[in-house]
Amino acid sequence: MTHVTKQHVSILDRGLHYGDGLFETMLVCAGQIPLLAGHQRRLAEGLRRLAIDADEPDIWKQVEQQALSVGEGSLKLMLTRGEGPRGYLPSTQSIPGIYILPYPSDSKSASNLQQSWIVRFCTTPASLNPALAGLKSLNRLDSVLARMEWQDARIHEGLLADMHGNLIEGTRSNLFCVTNGRILTPLLDQAGVAGVVRHWVMDHFKVEQVRLDRATLLAADEIFMTNSLMGLAAVRQIESHSFPAPGPVTAEIRQKFMEVIA
Amino acid sequence: MTHVTKQHVSILDRGLHYGDGLFETMLVCAGQIPLLAGHQRRLAEGLRRLAIDADEPDIWKQVEQQALSVGEGSLKLMLTRGEGPRGYLPSTQSIPGIYILPYPSDSKSASNLQQSWIVRFCTTPASLNPALAGLKSLNRLDSVLARMEWQDARIHEGLLADMHGNLIEGTRSNLFCVTNGRILTPLLDQAGVAGVVRHWVMDHFKVEQVRLDRATLLAADEIFMTNSLMGLAAVRQIESHSFPAPGPVTAEIRQKFMEVIA
Repeated sequence: MTHVTKQHVSILDRGLHYGDGLFETMLVCAGQIPLLAGHQRRLAEGLRRLAIDADEPDIWKQVEQQALSVGEGSLKLMLTRGEGPRGYLPSTQSIPGIYILPYPSDSKSASNLQQSWIVRFCTTPASLNPALAGLKSLNRLDSVLARMEWQDARIHEGLLADMHGNLIEGTRSNLFCVTNGRILTPLLDQAGVAGVVRHWVMDHFKVEQVRLDRATLLAADEIFMTNSLMGLAAVRQIESHSFPAPGPVTAEIRQKFMEVIA
Repeated sequence: MTHVTKQHVSILDRGLHYGDGLFETMLVCAGQIPLLAGHQRRLAEGLRRLAIDADEPDIWKQVEQQALSVGEGSLKLMLTRGEGPRGYLPSTQSIPGIYILPYPSDSKSASNLQQSWIVRFCTTPASLNPALAGLKSLNRLDSVLARMEWQDARIHEGLLADMHGNLIEGTRSNLFCVTNGRILTPLLDQAGVAGVVRHWVMDHFKVEQVRLDRATLLAADEIFMTNSLMGLAAVRQIESHSFPAPGPVTAEIRQKFMEVIA
């Protein structure tokens, strides 16, 4: 199977009709993708769960070539199930659609990795579906509607909870808090996107996945959020509540993360 | 604002990136769309809830022109928020993408409206999100995964429940049952697509919207499912349970519906 990176999308592509596909947004530093293995693992898991048969080595070869062209910045890969006949049942003959968007930057990509954020709570709920939870799929309307809730450019991120009040994630980031030395992050077994930096943090530090409500979050000693392009953003404020940014645990994790990027 | 019906989709279209858009699938009989007002009402409601600003009279003019060309068959309209900059926040300058796919048929469209179905239960849950419930949005991965659960061509439809076990809908249809003369259909306040034929049935008959579990469904006297292209499909079998198809209430509703189509 060969894939062609395309600039236009067929009107029959199931990525458009149903959001039937996946994506990865990747930091590029000096022509390399620092978290490449994490993105590869997540895409592989998504392909398996959606039962999309793609030539992964070929796709990653194309992505790595594009990263060399970008130099500093980021890349977005979208992978769809490709064209299909009418209706929800895919053809077994579909050839996946591969779309790679380069975003070169003027400055060193790593310069973006020391942010501190002001965060709000969103009223749009995160979609609950154990069959889709954790996937970085093209079904992202919950994040879109949540992000549309504010225009104030001083606010960096909004938090989504599910309809039962369990905090899940930010519109474009995962959530962690530190409480009495314990590092907590929401369970993503029913909703949310399992981020690559989130996975990295869980691989390198002891993290407990929990159901997390607003009160527990606001009582935390430190809060940080993770995203492939931002690394660890220390949260300095959520609505009227202030937090050290970064707190000591956040600073320690970020320090170790910066060594990966370097 | 002018819309151009396009055959190719920009790689920057948010319909592809996020499923940020809506669709309508419409029956066409003798060049006309019998349920036009219902499709118009649902699209308007979806545009309002997603805060997409589109020139609806112009869109429907294009759709009606295409219906004349189709003659007998169906049309699919997809409407996206259009191109945008990076990230979930839409541009206020976006021009919606309008995509109209014609599906002419060899036979009279109305000949499809007397089906009886064999139905199964799916294990893929319907996504729960009150902010998206009822919308016919381009986020349809739950229906895709549910439809992929069976290959047996004798089975016409699969039923989705939410993760709490409340039945919601079929992969491409809404669900009704008749129990002791009462017509019941699942509440779609937390999940599901509010179909145009479902709306028509509720406008013309007394229907109770309820939380419906499997046991209640299987104990029903009659079951039918609705869809714009099929009208009312009488369910004759769900797994090992048989039902009259059509039962008397289903037959009465279908009779009245056929008068609309004629």
